[in-house]
Amino acid sequence: MNGPTGVTREDFASDNHAEAHPAVLAAIMAAGRGSAPAYGGDRWTAAAEASLRDLAGPAAVPLLVFNGTAANVLGLSVLLGPGDAIICADNAHFAVDECGAVEAMLGRKLLLAPAPDGKLTPAAIEAVLERCTDVRTPRPSTVAITQATELGTCYTLRELAALRELCDRKGLRIYLDGARLANAVAHLGCKVADIARFADALSFGFTKNGALGADALLLMTSDLAERAPYLRRQQGQLASKMRFLAVQISALLDGELWLDNARHANSMTTRLAADLEKLPGLRLTQPVQSNAVFVELPPAATNTLRKSWTFHLLPAGVTRLMTSHATGQADVSDLATEVAASLK
Amino acid sequence: MNGPTGVTREDFASDNHAEAHPAVLAAIMAAGRGSAPAYGGDRWTAAAEASLRDLAGPAAVPLLVFNGTAANVLGLSVLLGPGDAIICADNAHFAVDECGAVEAMLGRKLLLAPAPDGKLTPAAIEAVLERCTDVRTPRPSTVAITQATELGTCYTLRELAALRELCDRKGLRIYLDGARLANAVAHLGCKVADIARFADALSFGFTKNGALGADALLLMTSDLAERAPYLRRQQGQLASKMRFLAVQISALLDGELWLDNARHANSMTTRLAADLEKLPGLRLTQPVQSNAVFVELPPAATNTLRKSWTFHLLPAGVTRLMTSHATGQADVSDLATEVAASLK
Amino acid sequence: MNGPTGVTREDFASDNHAEAHPAVLAAIMAAGRGSAPAYGGDRWTAAAEASLRDLAGPAAVPLLVFNGTAANVLGLSVLLGPGDAIICADNAHFAVDECGAVEAMLGRKLLLAPAPDGKLTPAAIEAVLERCTDVRTPRPSTVAITQATELGTCYTLRELAALRELCDRKGLRIYLDGARLANAVAHLGCKVADIARFADALSFGFTKNGALGADALLLMTSDLAERAPYLRRQQGQLASKMRFLAVQISALLDGELWLDNARHANSMTTRLAADLEKLPGLRLTQPVQSNAVFVELPPAATNTLRKSWTFHLLPAGVTRLMTSHATGQADVSDLATEVAASLK
Amino acid sequence: MNGPTGVTREDFASDNHAEAHPAVLAAIMAAGRGSAPAYGGDRWTAAAEASLRDLAGPAAVPLLVFNGTAANVLGLSVLLGPGDAIICADNAHFAVDECGAVEAMLGRKLLLAPAPDGKLTPAAIEAVLERCTDVRTPRPSTVAITQATELGTCYTLRELAALRELCDRKGLRIYLDGARLANAVAHLGCKVADIARFADALSFGFTKNGALGADALLLMTSDLAERAPYLRRQQGQLASKMRFLAVQISALLDGELWLDNARHANSMTTRLAADLEKLPGLRLTQPVQSNAVFVELPPAATNTLRKSWTFHLLPAGVTRLMTSHATGQADVSDLATEVAASLK
Repeated sequence: MNGPTGVTREDFASDNHAEAHPAVLAAIMAAGRGSAPAYGGDRWTAAAEASLRDLAGPAAVPLLVFNGTAANVLGLSVLLGPGDAIICADNAHFAVDECGAVEAMLGRKLLLAPAPDGKLTPAAIEAVLERCTDVRTPRPSTVAITQATELGTCYTLRELAALRELCDRKGLRIYLDGARLANAVAHLGCKVADIARFADALSFGFTKNGALGADALLLMTSDLAERAPYLRRQQGQLASKMRFLAVQISALLDGELWLDNARHANSMTTRLAADLEKLPGLRLTQPVQSNAVFVELPPAATNTLRKSWTFHLLPAGVTRLMTSHATGQADVSDLATEVAASLK
Repeated sequence: MNGPTGVTREDFASDNHAEAHPAVLAAIMAAGRGSAPAYGGDRWTAAAEASLRDLAGPAAVPLLVFNGTAANVLGLSVLLGPGDAIICADNAHFAVDECGAVEAMLGRKLLLAPAPDGKLTPAAIEAVLERCTDVRTPRPSTVAITQATELGTCYTLRELAALRELCDRKGLRIYLDGARLANAVAHLGCKVADIARFADALSFGFTKNGALGADALLLMTSDLAERAPYLRRQQGQLASKMRFLAVQISALLDGELWLDNARHANSMTTRLAADLEKLPGLRLTQPVQSNAVFVELPPAATNTLRKSWTFHLLPAGVTRLMTSHATGQADVSDLATEVAASLK
Repeated sequence: MNGPTGVTREDFASDNHAEAHPAVLAAIMAAGRGSAPAYGGDRWTAAAEASLRDLAGPAAVPLLVFNGTAANVLGLSVLLGPGDAIICADNAHFAVDECGAVEAMLGRKLLLAPAPDGKLTPAAIEAVLERCTDVRTPRPSTVAITQATELGTCYTLRELAALRELCDRKGLRIYLDGARLANAVAHLGCKVADIARFADALSFGFTKNGALGADALLLMTSDLAERAPYLRRQQGQLASKMRFLAVQISALLDGELWLDNARHANSMTTRLAADLEKLPGLRLTQPVQSNAVFVELPPAATNTLRKSWTFHLLPAGVTRLMTSHATGQADVSDLATEVAASLK
Repeated sequence: MNGPTGVTREDFASDNHAEAHPAVLAAIMAAGRGSAPAYGGDRWTAAAEASLRDLAGPAAVPLLVFNGTAANVLGLSVLLGPGDAIICADNAHFAVDECGAVEAMLGRKLLLAPAPDGKLTPAAIEAVLERCTDVRTPRPSTVAITQATELGTCYTLRELAALRELCDRKGLRIYLDGARLANAVAHLGCKVADIARFADALSFGFTKNGALGADALLLMTSDLAERAPYLRRQQGQLASKMRFLAVQISALLDGELWLDNARHANSMTTRLAADLEKLPGLRLTQPVQSNAVFVELPPAATNTLRKSWTFHLLPAGVTRLMTSHATGQADVSDLATEVAASLK
């Protein structure tokens, strides 16, 4: 995949293969000179935090971290009391892709609920709760959901409200993994606050949206905020030169660039899905609601395509094709054309 | 301290207040465009790792992480067997400044040895070992040292050899916190490998040397390497777009920029120390062997100076003045002049 | 269930509802007087450890602990290197019944394999290994099995050999949860060593066999032994007056009382199963290979029986009936009679 | 020390070398027969818990565990929020004698305050708080004290009230390690509740008071009680046959046997101290306020005495002589006589 320059045509493996957005690079350059306080005591961090509060709500407490795994671990560590367990989808990113970080760093058990489309339902949560009858099972105190999900789907606001209602009734908190929150906001046509208000804490991912590497954790109730900075430090996520995280986020928040990027990625996926759906014998396994297409390709086609394209092949023969802010229409057209050819 | 632009004259609080080096910014720009594999599968990461091996030795296994706390936690997690404890100086950074990260993330007890000049001695280590007589005390398996130390001093190569000899005899491993390894190499006039060969694992800090935020862990024996990538992922330190860590390190390694930066910082400290030592009644509390001066200032002088300068005030009335690659001669002269004035 | 004396006819809920064996009580009395060294430095502990070595093999290193959860956690903590994960049956006791102790105390992820009869197979282990392709999944280093299993079945020696062969080939260690090892030995007609030799570490449970509360961990390779005593202390499992654990175990080992107890319990289960199988419409869901019968009872029958008997009702309408050293033939006959009546 | 029977004259090494009290053994015998619910659902456990509430107060929630280390870890785990640290005496048992259990099982940093007589003072706590200025130090939320202390001293009720007042003012909780609470109650002539009311959670040790092995954790505010049973299970401290822990405690609580035992042990220490103080050149290093004498003996005397007596030799040449419920007047006289002889 690496040509002589190490730069390739945009691939479809993951939105974290994508380049940095030029506005992010420009912001890094601008913040790079001169002395500034460390550990977030600088004006750039204050500005990024203020912009995040503008989006999520005035009570939100933002904490910048290096990546999405870190945001998940920090967010859950703030929410969970001693010994508590987490209810989550069996395909949640931190359940299957983060090398057991929640278990290793927080010592927590994940109580898994089946989620064939990536989304937890009130019924699935209640089924887990029914298994929790005594001290043989740790006490679940937090439900963790992902928006957009690992399967590219989005909870509707109504679905989020139903989860919140159940959790309020059961005394459960909600953590929302928003590594691709931007794509969900773009898909739903809502505001960040419309989603954030259903969570006790959520992450807001910028790395997959055009940053070099920067994500935010947002605590939605101020009583959670006291311990969080200590936990961030303990977990190795307090950047000494935090201005360089902050300016990435500000660059993406300015003028809603983050939303433009997400809309672009989503539209590239929509276009790709439309092209693929026209092909005889292809089946999309999930509705297209963010920046990924999941499609069943014949093995022979997959093998042909892998020679010139990068993408993920999931168990059970499903191919994930993912777009980003940097995906071009030509990339999509080329891929669709080659998929069509591979089927012959 | 923040002027209208948020940028101030270079301060003396910490080398992580310093700006990014222009060569680092340029490298970020150059790597910012185009698609590339995530999680370190890119050519920039391979290049940075190769450069680190060139310096530390062909058997060294480098792992890039976001910061120094992370390198310490990852390095110790690789070295320590189940239940083992760590022997370290009572003023080690991870013992006093990292919010209990080693305890929180690794569940390890620190067995502290007094180190008035920041350096562990064989005798101090043996005194700790003598306290470890049975299962009331966890079994120490690793000695952790810092080079340059928190008090700006450096172990000589002979001192490192003596520690290694003791540790070999006692079956102990050595972890070396090299957040300011560059400054130590510059002071000792040795090579990185001359220090690295005494350690089983060490960190090599670039954040304080001119990077935005990037440090490396170096494993010096290959049997340690198998688990390390998994631990890095669990600990939230695997950058998805790792090329942006890698190019920072490569920019500093190219043409020994890291060494020039360290030499410059050290020379600014030497100059500052010389100026201060001329002033009547001032006492430097530690020998100047890297990029920090520790000096006893009268409280009235401290209060005067704090109005226009940023620096750390330690317990017991000792002031730490720290330089960086970005400290200018004029900064040093200005500070020395104002210190002199404050004493009158 | 509690009559005026708090003592009831023997129930079928669990072998840890059973009374203490008189020989165990007599041993406690005998060891109760006079001063003795603490923390296992006494002669009773030495004797129990020697008896355990006689059974498991001369290289075995025994460590006494308070209960089976503790033995599992200690055993796994000795076997697992930093960050490693565990492969186990999805119905393993520590996966579903120990409140997430392995996650909480050791920070480990369990990689679950389906085991409808409680037994892991080489194929099931290999299927898990195939999912472990990169750092997204923690590195599995240990396979944990249970003998007898949670579903009352036993691995044959041939099956254990096949698991050992696979694990040797894949570089995996084996931990064996032997909370009911005695029942397995009784069923297989083998020796403890015949099973123990396939494991790197195993527990040997006495609490369910007639003790008040005492289990042993056996380390089968001496290189594991160095750290284990420290881990036992850290984990709160070092009894200060350890003689009172030791004499329970010795009382059960003397004259093979443990084996008589297990044979008795197994025979009561065999008799109960024979009685139940005669009843029309009843189905045993697992082969009877130790001291538990799993049987599908109609809900109405279950409700009737619960008024006068104590037993566990599993999800999916399966009833677990468990015997112990203290179960009498009359208890079995009474229960079988009442089950028959409940079906009418 | 072990004679042919393994039983020796009572030694002075530790109160956990002492025999079990006959009333405890009788209670074990009485509870040993018949089936009973597991995991604390039995009538004996209910009775022991009720008796503990009678002593500590009606709001107290008791949890039985196997030993003192376990009670400390469980108690602290209930009190500490995410990431919080503990302030304790530098000679606290869990700081120096429990193999780093708090660090290993709870991931907590201990912020040590010097306590030459074993007792924390408000000033010492405030000095620690002054060091906690930012995220470099974890946030202390709990002060842990020991009553009677490791040095045999006791806080007066007035001293406890002063600590409580400070902690209330600073928002800190108090954990009290009561491994020798009985000895403190006997010394102060107060009630258990007089001490317990100053703590948010405390342990009440019975193992050193005549039990085989049983301690209680008492939670003094009911909001702490919800998570505690889960944490006890996770930490391997939920006895399956809990009746055998419960009856030990009930036997000691019945008729205030625990208090008689403590008074006896204390009186033996008082007598020993009086005998030793008469000897020329001997110095007791701590006031005698429970069941231990700390005395400086010449090395030659120590070496002579070790041939026929068992006791602990602390660093700095101080000998600890500890009595128990089983220490006889003849033991004390014999020891005092031999100490006198050894000095000649």
